Amino acid sequence: MRVHGQPYRTIFVAADGATVAVIDQTRLPFAFELRHLRTAAEAAEAIRDMVVRGAPLIGVTAAYGLALAMREDATDAGLEGAVELLAGTRPTAVNLQWALARMRSVLLAEPPAARVGRAYAEAQTIAEEDVAACRDIGRHGRGLIESAARRRGGEPVRVLTHCNAGWLACVDWGTALAPVYMAHEAGLPVHVYVDETRPRNQGAFLTAFELGAHGVPHTVIADNAGGHLMQHGQVDLCIVGSDRTTATGDVANKIGTYLKALAARDSGVPFYAALPSSTIDWAMEDGVRQIPIEERAARELTHLRGRAADGRVLEVEVVAPGSPVANPAFDVTPARLLTGLITERGVAAASREGLLSLYPERARN
Amino acid sequence: MRVHGQPYRTIFVAADGATVAVIDQTRLPFAFELRHLRTAAEAAEAIRDMVVRGAPLIGVTAAYGLALAMREDATDAGLEGAVELLAGTRPTAVNLQWALARMRSVLLAEPPAARVGRAYAEAQTIAEEDVAACRDIGRHGRGLIESAARRRGGEPVRVLTHCNAGWLACVDWGTALAPVYMAHEAGLPVHVYVDETRPRNQGAFLTAFELGAHGVPHTVIADNAGGHLMQHGQVDLCIVGSDRTTATGDVANKIGTYLKALAARDSGVPFYAALPSSTIDWAMEDGVRQIPIEERAARELTHLRGRAADGRVLEVEVVAPGSPVANPAFDVTPARLLTGLITERGVAAASREGLLSLYPERARN
Repeated sequence: MRVHGQPYRTIFVAADGATVAVIDQTRLPFAFELRHLRTAAEAAEAIRDMVVRGAPLIGVTAAYGLALAMREDATDAGLEGAVELLAGTRPTAVNLQWALARMRSVLLAEPPAARVGRAYAEAQTIAEEDVAACRDIGRHGRGLIESAARRRGGEPVRVLTHCNAGWLACVDWGTALAPVYMAHEAGLPVHVYVDETRPRNQGAFLTAFELGAHGVPHTVIADNAGGHLMQHGQVDLCIVGSDRTTATGDVANKIGTYLKALAARDSGVPFYAALPSSTIDWAMEDGVRQIPIEERAARELTHLRGRAADGRVLEVEVVAPGSPVANPAFDVTPARLLTGLITERGVAAASREGLLSLYPERARN
Repeated sequence: MRVHGQPYRTIFVAADGATVAVIDQTRLPFAFELRHLRTAAEAAEAIRDMVVRGAPLIGVTAAYGLALAMREDATDAGLEGAVELLAGTRPTAVNLQWALARMRSVLLAEPPAARVGRAYAEAQTIAEEDVAACRDIGRHGRGLIESAARRRGGEPVRVLTHCNAGWLACVDWGTALAPVYMAHEAGLPVHVYVDETRPRNQGAFLTAFELGAHGVPHTVIADNAGGHLMQHGQVDLCIVGSDRTTATGDVANKIGTYLKALAARDSGVPFYAALPSSTIDWAMEDGVRQIPIEERAARELTHLRGRAADGRVLEVEVVAPGSPVANPAFDVTPARLLTGLITERGVAAASREGLLSLYPERARN
């Protein structure tokens, strides 16, 4: 998508054909900078420190991380060590494990001498597949916005989203925001309510940045405000992303998603999760019981990065000194609260039947 | 309650018998300072700028504001002008209008020469009534914590609260936190989950400060986290305050309260609002339709006060530059989501019948 009028992807191989360039998302929205990853350890660090984040982008970064690892040590031991290193960076995102398993299996089938080239090619393929999946999600989801636009009679369709499931979370287009970008490109009037998304402010920092940079009308709100807006008929549609989706349609997404789904149901607002099928964990039945929820560092809540009046970007303490904090990073929205799932193959009910109607090859014998 | 071991109230007449001292809540939690109000304009400014906040404390501050006004100009015109000035500071809190109407009626019945003394006396009476009401709310609400403690078999009772409805919002004890303080004083193990409460962070700044200063165990969480905790059985009871309560039991409270009430219902967690009857607006039937919701300045959301590494307290920008924001300050939790209302006269169902059982004198003829 566009930044300052120029098209970008979140991750790409630099001109030297080896270094992997990523947009440093820890610097947004106050600075737009690239970071160059040269080793698997740097890729792991970029994932762990959330220089890159968002389930699809984490998967692609891990894939490129293995390509960098092959440049360092293309033996089986080098591969296994790098898989382990990268797998340990973020526990919740299923794409990470999925991408690593795919890369590992492809690379083990090659002799070490062929692994570097094969790794870059496979990582590139994973990236292109993600772009294609997001584009398809956008096309299918645009239909929901088109329907809402007809009901709104020319007034902007008001979409609420949580966290950042835009192109910055993927390689391009995004998941939850792909339908918005597609609608915007098609000339449909659309306005996005962006949840701030504490504690890391991905909404206020990233979603607001990418919508603004691309020219999509939007309004940032506190995470607390969405229920009030829905109660007063100011939201036509909610679309969020998914970090992990069970075979039964439960969705693990950024902490707070569940609260918005409850509000949507209470006010009769349609609530969708948009996701590539790579986030579906076909082995899971019960998201609330089975999906491990990452507890992240207290400092994410007690300190917040911001720009001071003198232009310096710095961290400030924003919790009473000495007070303990808890920081669960995700929550699970049960399928019963979801109107549907928007996937690269179409829109389905959030249920085993719904998902199997799109992915019949996953049906058990 | 105690701060650094010393008992305090949030507002009191200074040693000169005229100046009104308040705790400057805009400086908490990084500094504990008093501010001295010498004119009605300073009192109005303190309310508008949230040096004092919380419905009960706003009412008492407005009452003292009229006492200060009488020192400046005790004529009817002086009184009416000061009432108008103070009434315009915060639109949602019904206590403000209630306290001003009461003071006005008392003062108009006196000759101008007697108004200064009468005003201080009446303001003091309102303050003492608030302390008594909070103490009674605490006593009634403690019963709910006692019951939960029996079910918990000695493990701490986990209470979730939103915003600050503690003693800093009142004169002493608080509303939502009064039962917690009473339980703590009685030796019952209690642990408070404190919602950060964006955009002004009253939870992370004020509730965490006052609980910590008094020695009550607590954990600060992002506003997004409460649904997840309730879904996983980690909250026994929610208690929030109320800025305005309808005759039918709907509750207007800090933005985000409604979302927590939805989560509590979804997980079967009891959800109470604690309130002095002065917050009940007996003329209102439908909170969602009738209660005016204050839209506050964008800057409250785009900028946040915090303490930098060098110890300086400063404001930083925390939203993508150029992105528009919306900032509704309250939302309405419909009575159907409330397990009950804790008032100074006891605990009642959140309904007209429930409230009239405690306040039969309010029944229509």
